[in-house]
Amino acid sequence: MNHTPDAAKAFVTVREVGLRDGLQILARTVPTAHKIAWLRAEHAAGVRHFEVGSFVPPKLMPQLADTAEVVAAGLQLPGAVVSVLVPNLKGAERALASGAHAMLMPISASHAHSLANLKRTPAEAVAELAAAAAARDRLAAETGRRVRLEVGLSTAFGCTIQGRVDEAEALRLVAAVLAAGADEVGLADTVGYADPEQVRRLFTKAREQHGERIACGHFHDTRGLGLANVYAAWQTGVRTFDACLGGLGGCPHAPGASGNVATEDVAYLFASMGVRTGLDIPELLRLRGDLAGWLPGEPLRGSIAGAGLPKTLHAADAIAA
Amino acid sequence: MNHTPDAAKAFVTVREVGLRDGLQILARTVPTAHKIAWLRAEHAAGVRHFEVGSFVPPKLMPQLADTAEVVAAGLQLPGAVVSVLVPNLKGAERALASGAHAMLMPISASHAHSLANLKRTPAEAVAELAAAAAARDRLAAETGRRVRLEVGLSTAFGCTIQGRVDEAEALRLVAAVLAAGADEVGLADTVGYADPEQVRRLFTKAREQHGERIACGHFHDTRGLGLANVYAAWQTGVRTFDACLGGLGGCPHAPGASGNVATEDVAYLFASMGVRTGLDIPELLRLRGDLAGWLPGEPLRGSIAGAGLPKTLHAADAIAA
Repeated sequence: MNHTPDAAKAFVTVREVGLRDGLQILARTVPTAHKIAWLRAEHAAGVRHFEVGSFVPPKLMPQLADTAEVVAAGLQLPGAVVSVLVPNLKGAERALASGAHAMLMPISASHAHSLANLKRTPAEAVAELAAAAAARDRLAAETGRRVRLEVGLSTAFGCTIQGRVDEAEALRLVAAVLAAGADEVGLADTVGYADPEQVRRLFTKAREQHGERIACGHFHDTRGLGLANVYAAWQTGVRTFDACLGGLGGCPHAPGASGNVATEDVAYLFASMGVRTGLDIPELLRLRGDLAGWLPGEPLRGSIAGAGLPKTLHAADAIAA
Repeated sequence: MNHTPDAAKAFVTVREVGLRDGLQILARTVPTAHKIAWLRAEHAAGVRHFEVGSFVPPKLMPQLADTAEVVAAGLQLPGAVVSVLVPNLKGAERALASGAHAMLMPISASHAHSLANLKRTPAEAVAELAAAAAARDRLAAETGRRVRLEVGLSTAFGCTIQGRVDEAEALRLVAAVLAAGADEVGLADTVGYADPEQVRRLFTKAREQHGERIACGHFHDTRGLGLANVYAAWQTGVRTFDACLGGLGGCPHAPGASGNVATEDVAYLFASMGVRTGLDIPELLRLRGDLAGWLPGEPLRGSIAGAGLPKTLHAADAIAA
């Protein structure tokens, strides 16, 4: 059983990644004004950590071409921590120029996914990461502003192209990216293959080796195990989780891997366990309604929106939690 | 962390309760022939434990009026363990006469739910249970055939009518029903209010006091936490779980509490963790298709049916698992 002391159970950070992971696979482009409205409304609902876009070439991902503008809007929100995805050094340079607090570089644990998604091998991706880390360090030396560089280890629990991903290979890459200059690493079930025991094993081993630098869990709910996986990772001490409002999300290079865990459901999971997230679930549900209006025909997922909060968890508790 | 020895992780029993919990809230009555086809197909898919109906007055639940026939069909399946729900002594007498291997009497941890569902207080329900236990013992003395008497402790984690259910009250009732002659007790989240930490706490305490007599977890997936709750209970050593094919189910006296965990999703959860259930997931999914045909317009739930098995878990593994 889990013997995490109660104090360490006190708070969980839910990072909204819908503006990046949720929107990148949609055929439509959501207007910048809606993205900013989303940001502001979720900030009002208590969200403080956002991944707001990606500095990829606009012609590859026109949905995220306005990332610099969304970053700028996020930077105006008190206490908000704004991060962006960067696929390479060029993206990292744009992120450093944007004023974002953090940049997240995806590195695929699966060789096949790495080639499909990043057009390079994992080893080449680690070299690119080292270059991004150097750029981060130069900026810090020149200006005193240090941008956090995170790695999201994609397909850490399996891959729709390659199939199995060896646990030793995932751990080897975690060590490699930390050695190459990443500040933190998150383990991502990009394709919805993870099971709770696998999550517990890999996070436990990675955290035994690297402690709190293994910071974030990123789970998709493709096969119904998303929240069980969040719970399993939380049991190992992980206190930051990525989520998408309305369960949006997927991976352009992982067919059928749709559906990040829903922000409102992750908030409910922790509220139900008495773990504070600072999130106002009724407000999140109201915003989910707006999101549905902005994305007509797009299926929103998640459970709590349909079922409502239980009688044992009143709105006030949900907010307090 | 969980330190359950590997050997104890080796097998989990998934009990199909759809023929009772799944069908009792439907307005329609499923023909006996379909119920028997369901039984046989799931038996062929590896299911061995079934709750096939309920000995309630037929005018109250015409959907289950053919329970004796379905019991008889179940008894013909090699290795099948057939149980029925019994609300009172009269039902227990019918169950004992039917040849069923086990009977499950629901006792509500929530006073309000007990009055609504059983028309008696928990104390009165325990007295009725004692009478059923005496009838069981008489049959055993007369014929040598001993029928297992289980209690399903309903609303053990909260109640849509009453709200909070005190943990001490749930544990007091567990002790009371075991003292009154129940062979085993399962803890049931009848209304989809449980969270994984609450599940872990209550099962841990109950099992510390009563060991393996706390045998079964019964979870609904109303708010997305069904499989996380199954996982949490499994971590405490529970090795039997109720489930309904296609996520059917609910409680007539718990509005909005629809949706038991889906048999095929529970089978997938355990297969993904390398825990054997003996269940053939592709066969379960084929039967789910038949079920959809028998229940036109009825929403089936669950995740694995839509997403399919991951590449890392081939059909053969799923069967072997």
